[in-house]
Amino acid sequence: MRIGAIEAGGTKFVCGIGNEQGTILERVSFPTEGPEETLAQVIAFFKDKEVEAIGIGTFGPIDIDPSSPTYGHVTTTPKPGWTGYDFLGSMKAALPLPYGWDTDVNAAAYGEATWGAAQGLDSCVYYTVGTGIGMGAYSEGKLVHGLVHPEAGHVLVRRHPEDTYEGFCPYHADCLEGLAAGPAIEKRWERKGVDLPPEHEAWRLEAYYLAQAAMTSILLLSPRKVIFGGGVMKQPQLFPLLRQEVLRLLNGYVSAEAVLSGIDSYIVPPGLGDNAGLCGALALGIDAANQAAD
Amino acid sequence: MRIGAIEAGGTKFVCGIGNEQGTILERVSFPTEGPEETLAQVIAFFKDKEVEAIGIGTFGPIDIDPSSPTYGHVTTTPKPGWTGYDFLGSMKAALPLPYGWDTDVNAAAYGEATWGAAQGLDSCVYYTVGTGIGMGAYSEGKLVHGLVHPEAGHVLVRRHPEDTYEGFCPYHADCLEGLAAGPAIEKRWERKGVDLPPEHEAWRLEAYYLAQAAMTSILLLSPRKVIFGGGVMKQPQLFPLLRQEVLRLLNGYVSAEAVLSGIDSYIVPPGLGDNAGLCGALALGIDAANQAAD
Repeated sequence: MRIGAIEAGGTKFVCGIGNEQGTILERVSFPTEGPEETLAQVIAFFKDKEVEAIGIGTFGPIDIDPSSPTYGHVTTTPKPGWTGYDFLGSMKAALPLPYGWDTDVNAAAYGEATWGAAQGLDSCVYYTVGTGIGMGAYSEGKLVHGLVHPEAGHVLVRRHPEDTYEGFCPYHADCLEGLAAGPAIEKRWERKGVDLPPEHEAWRLEAYYLAQAAMTSILLLSPRKVIFGGGVMKQPQLFPLLRQEVLRLLNGYVSAEAVLSGIDSYIVPPGLGDNAGLCGALALGIDAANQAAD
Repeated sequence: MRIGAIEAGGTKFVCGIGNEQGTILERVSFPTEGPEETLAQVIAFFKDKEVEAIGIGTFGPIDIDPSSPTYGHVTTTPKPGWTGYDFLGSMKAALPLPYGWDTDVNAAAYGEATWGAAQGLDSCVYYTVGTGIGMGAYSEGKLVHGLVHPEAGHVLVRRHPEDTYEGFCPYHADCLEGLAAGPAIEKRWERKGVDLPPEHEAWRLEAYYLAQAAMTSILLLSPRKVIFGGGVMKQPQLFPLLRQEVLRLLNGYVSAEAVLSGIDSYIVPPGLGDNAGLCGALALGIDAANQAAD
């Protein structure tokens, strides 16, 4: 099997070719521009690659309801030119193949459940903490879609009493994303996160907010693994702080050994590292190929 | 088909017989006592009823992981005698039949998805707001179990700046349940909710907290219907306040017509009224009978 995979991010696109073992055989990446320019590059990459199907995990919000007339479209995004764009339709027109189609974060959750930190488990949540905060959810062996798809970067969190930063989310100001995504760290401390030392109080505050997100997903989705990826999570000192804060918040309420005594292997970085999204798109593509073959 | 249904609540048990149309043909209820006394009454009721299977929706937390050695047990509960009790095993020993087994709130969500407000939809969440707050989740056509099961009554909420009540949750003090379940209303206002007039400020505050719960479930699970039942929700003035507050909180972020323009039919009371839990247990029992027949 040769399957195409697209990880469509807000700042860059990654296209790859992989097989059913989850091995990426070849890849390219380029900056995200307007939809026509960007998809022209995507299509040029896949044109002669003889893939059986393509899986797409993309920034959103997107329409993933197959019964909707705008299925496959990007719905609303601040990215110029992309709002309302028929991403999936444009791909199908240029390269008529079976397609998998989901959010970048659902794809990453699926990649982790297929070959990564949640391999073999029937549930996980995947948070990415970078320029924004997104969340993908895999529950009872299925990616969560529902009405739209999870958008758990925008949950409300309790502000730390000493945090005076107002938050940058244009919709909710001080929601999780507004207080804890990369730009919030930079604006609050007037330095990028990568330039802050590991012992800086910024990380304790970051863990304070991310732990609330983790707690909320544990209480609503009861996942078998909670995965945190994205640029901000490259700070290894964050994980111990985050786990400790989750235990403090839950205060023994969820009496599962996986949480109470196994927290170090319950809240984890992606097993696939930076490949979670692309591998997840590959897994979506494999499913699309298999469904087409049935 | 004659199927048994048990809605096992913290204060009362309801046992019923129903059919595959969701019709309850017969029912009894009695107060919840210790497990032996209570199950003796349950078993006496079903003994000569010739049901094909029994579905149980019960208070918890409970173990619903079929691979667990304590599957079918109540895990931890303040109710005397029930902690660690093998509820399902005791039923099977007395009445060897196929059983469905889930939380009371997951059962209610399933009842609503089968015959109620979410009939025909592949997802919904069901909140019960009474002496505690519980939540059941149905997603992509399956009840959410995962590691344990949802426990979304204990999510953290932002306190209203004018609310000085400390909250009554023994684990988290001022989590959702601690601030918004029936006992919180009574302790804060020194009168039971049923004795407060519809225009009392208590209801606006209640909507303030419940709307955060609704928002959180919309952002994490993206359900096609959000259902609020339980004693506190018998106050009809709560629903308009709750819907208005959810729209204010989301601030247009979830751009789905079901939410933006259809909120009156999106956040709703149970279509089955007080029968949601018992009908859900019936639906679990029907599934158990069908699985046994396969």
